Amino acid sequence: MTVAEYIVNFLRERGVKDMYGVPGGVILDFLYAAHYIDGIEPHLCNHEQIAGFAAAGYAQVHHQLGVAYATRGPGITNMVTPLADAFFDSLPVLFFTAHGGNLPEKGMRCLCDQEFDIVALVRKITKFSARVDNINDVEKNIERAYAAALSGRKGPVLLDIAASLWKKDMPIIQPVSFVPKKADNYKKTLLQIREWLQQAQRPVLLIGDGINQSHTQKYVEQFISRNNMPVVSSRCSQDILSGHPSYFGYIGSHGIREANLILSKADLILSIGNRMAFPVNSTSYTKINAPVIRLDIDENEFNRSIPDSMPCKVDLENFMPFLGQIRISRSYEDWISICNKIRKVFINSDFNVIVKRIRKIIESADSTTCFIGDVGNNEFWLSKAYYMAGMKNRLLFSHSFGSLGAALPKAMGSCHSRCSKSFCFIGDQGLQFSLGALETIAHEHLPILIVVLNNHASGMILDRELRAGYQSSLHSTCSDGYSAPNYKALAKGFGMHYYVRAHKLYQLPAILEVKIPSIPLVPTLEKGKECGDMFPYIERKLYNELIKL
Amino acid sequence: MTVAEYIVNFLRERGVKDMYGVPGGVILDFLYAAHYIDGIEPHLCNHEQIAGFAAAGYAQVHHQLGVAYATRGPGITNMVTPLADAFFDSLPVLFFTAHGGNLPEKGMRCLCDQEFDIVALVRKITKFSARVDNINDVEKNIERAYAAALSGRKGPVLLDIAASLWKKDMPIIQPVSFVPKKADNYKKTLLQIREWLQQAQRPVLLIGDGINQSHTQKYVEQFISRNNMPVVSSRCSQDILSGHPSYFGYIGSHGIREANLILSKADLILSIGNRMAFPVNSTSYTKINAPVIRLDIDENEFNRSIPDSMPCKVDLENFMPFLGQIRISRSYEDWISICNKIRKVFINSDFNVIVKRIRKIIESADSTTCFIGDVGNNEFWLSKAYYMAGMKNRLLFSHSFGSLGAALPKAMGSCHSRCSKSFCFIGDQGLQFSLGALETIAHEHLPILIVVLNNHASGMILDRELRAGYQSSLHSTCSDGYSAPNYKALAKGFGMHYYVRAHKLYQLPAILEVKIPSIPLVPTLEKGKECGDMFPYIERKLYNELIKL
Repeated sequence: MTVAEYIVNFLRERGVKDMYGVPGGVILDFLYAAHYIDGIEPHLCNHEQIAGFAAAGYAQVHHQLGVAYATRGPGITNMVTPLADAFFDSLPVLFFTAHGGNLPEKGMRCLCDQEFDIVALVRKITKFSARVDNINDVEKNIERAYAAALSGRKGPVLLDIAASLWKKDMPIIQPVSFVPKKADNYKKTLLQIREWLQQAQRPVLLIGDGINQSHTQKYVEQFISRNNMPVVSSRCSQDILSGHPSYFGYIGSHGIREANLILSKADLILSIGNRMAFPVNSTSYTKINAPVIRLDIDENEFNRSIPDSMPCKVDLENFMPFLGQIRISRSYEDWISICNKIRKVFINSDFNVIVKRIRKIIESADSTTCFIGDVGNNEFWLSKAYYMAGMKNRLLFSHSFGSLGAALPKAMGSCHSRCSKSFCFIGDQGLQFSLGALETIAHEHLPILIVVLNNHASGMILDRELRAGYQSSLHSTCSDGYSAPNYKALAKGFGMHYYVRAHKLYQLPAILEVKIPSIPLVPTLEKGKECGDMFPYIERKLYNELIKL
Repeated sequence: MTVAEYIVNFLRERGVKDMYGVPGGVILDFLYAAHYIDGIEPHLCNHEQIAGFAAAGYAQVHHQLGVAYATRGPGITNMVTPLADAFFDSLPVLFFTAHGGNLPEKGMRCLCDQEFDIVALVRKITKFSARVDNINDVEKNIERAYAAALSGRKGPVLLDIAASLWKKDMPIIQPVSFVPKKADNYKKTLLQIREWLQQAQRPVLLIGDGINQSHTQKYVEQFISRNNMPVVSSRCSQDILSGHPSYFGYIGSHGIREANLILSKADLILSIGNRMAFPVNSTSYTKINAPVIRLDIDENEFNRSIPDSMPCKVDLENFMPFLGQIRISRSYEDWISICNKIRKVFINSDFNVIVKRIRKIIESADSTTCFIGDVGNNEFWLSKAYYMAGMKNRLLFSHSFGSLGAALPKAMGSCHSRCSKSFCFIGDQGLQFSLGALETIAHEHLPILIVVLNNHASGMILDRELRAGYQSSLHSTCSDGYSAPNYKALAKGFGMHYYVRAHKLYQLPAILEVKIPSIPLVPTLEKGKECGDMFPYIERKLYNELIKL
């Protein structure tokens, strides 16, 4: 078995079915190995950035390993954005590249065309990266890369293999026997949580993507069914408990009003798998004054200073089954009914015409369809529509790195991973960042509905320009330098179907162009305001009543 | 004057007329300053990679400063490929980005969304990079960045400015008085060159892009007019002396036969502004056995070991006026006539139907039109057509980093820089890497002819697959997974003209789709062969005669 075959088999045995890349001289042998081995398929993409995001989407949908490959030089530098995206969003993606020559001598810019030290470049945005020149290091490095990607807090890894190794015979390896780490029973942590909850009158569960990543959604539900208390989430993890009666939406500066208000009334916040990014720089949060129990797998996150908090490093995969068993002897029924009262006041108050149109589209999807949102105002409209409809479908975003255009290639990865449809919601600007993906989607007949939310503008920039009080907008509307192509003609150019109306029987792949007005993004939490007091402001009397509840 | 205005004025005073980027929150104030200051124009691009390459094209055409800007996070990581490209090809490009918050604590992946240490990431592929948080450091850093980009061997630089500084008043600065470095008169080097040339019977001048970068083309001509000797070049710098009777083409594994053969017969090589990348790993070169005088601005290049060579660090800008004055007392007329005899044997022998079609297209251009070639077989066809026609137009490539798709955005930068037309030659795969550029080109009505050399294949990969003896091709032809969009429909989608026939009266911008057969790239220098003996091999008797000349 060659080195290339060994690596491909290693990936296949661990459940990888698809990988993404663009061929290039030094990576060809790896590509051929993947092609000839059954059960794994390499997909040709039209830019390595697209390949990287497709692998990230593949990884994100089930938090399993995604794989991307690129040739040296511009091939692998084109993957730096998806790599950073995967690092910020804890996505387990293995990036492969290869080299044909030596690194340049100290100070020399380039010894061989296209070759440089990619491992040094990505070191700080990968969990593990290595240049492999010795055949005896292959096994060790693939094992390490795999373990690093998927263990603890997940994330991207990179291997840069000498091209001369691909076709060499893999040496026979003594299997390494791992001594499994004894799982913690978290006795002390659980005791403390129980004690704090016992004393609390208005606890709020704040959940984050760590729940999705550790596949522990059902234990959250179990815990809630035993101890009914309100749950809020970060925006990008609302699919964990969407539609559940105890779920009150996502918090944040563009969050759901009831979620922010409920959080502000909490006397204890139990944060699970949420990195608590919200409070940073937010004077709104610091007004809350509730103690916080922080359950996070990554102790580095505890450097993010949260006053009056109890940091607990836990691996949710092991921890959540215990938490699910806990039963607090007191009830929070009064608190829950206050939360429901608040929800009733706000219900449907912030859902504009765009949100309603998106709602109609997502409600036409079957339950296996995955929704992927891009970056910009469109992600907030989609988030609201999803909450409004109480959908249960998987919902993906580029959370923390916010990579414009990532949604379309991520939709490709999601289709392959789930063998199901994807609805990709993207702005007219974002789609221009990933046009190359259209060809692969058309060529592979992927069941993707590309919903272009076309406001003929770079909406989020326009909002910001208006808010910042610039004399006029610039590069954000059709009258000041921004423009977008004719998407109907483009659909034709790529041999895709094209629709302007939502219905139930799309022939996919297709572009559904939804022409929308350029509406400012509301509600928003303005600087310094109380967390539950969002613009446009509700009547003061009503607000004061809600605050007093 | 604000910091943003100060920086924009600084650039404008140094001749920058255009800059390229995509707006984003932290960079908006900089963009607005550029918009409101006369004489400099920011151009909206549809991907930061496109903006980065547009700036690289702007820089490359006259070797003057190019400027690109991007927002934090994915904005600036999208520029890593053009940044590396500029580093490899010594292009002076200033990349701006900005940040809004602090860097994460040690070990923490992200403190604020999208923010990380981009300066650390690009350090090894920039000549200078700095994060600027203190207003008193602004002037120093912009001066340093500017000087680093343009002095010595040129290259890219990056500044990451705190967004909070943009609108602050720039402190009054004491102008720094630079003591100009005393220029060398290179007496010793010139004496040695004269001595070596005096002894040589078959000297060859090997010129490289350093000549273009130092704007010293005329001194090469002066030197040749005084001391007639054959000149060969690297492929990417053939526009220095194209059409000159003493110029015999470009060397290399896909070079012009006469150039390689003449180089192999040299008894002295005078290499000027050429980094001598050709011999690396090439057993063909080591058979030449001629001593080499290496004139290079970057002493690190002398780490590239060339046997029997005399390395001389010189700044061509100062050095070439001296070299131009040299007159060697002996003549090389016999040697020149041998070279002409060789050329006569080979003339037009390797120019296939594709090359001829390209020749027709480039000959239809006026003298100010800039030609930009992309990556892949197409760059070699274009190179041959250009040599065949003896054109004088400026000819750009992505030389050493070989960034697929870079030609189209570079054509944008070239148009702005020269206020003239560009002809961009690109493959059907390469164009898919830069589709976003089509919108800007159409929107700005840029006079660009996009010549799509459409062989419905990834030609260079296919060649490699065939040569490597794989069972079948993969991801390189329309029957094995590769595909390309309908470019006629695409042209319509972007509102561009579309042609299939070369003529003289294109309405620009336009796509000219040239359907070409998938022909293997020849001639090539096969491994271990003598430098002048290229495949397909000429008759042995004739070859031996040429060798003996």
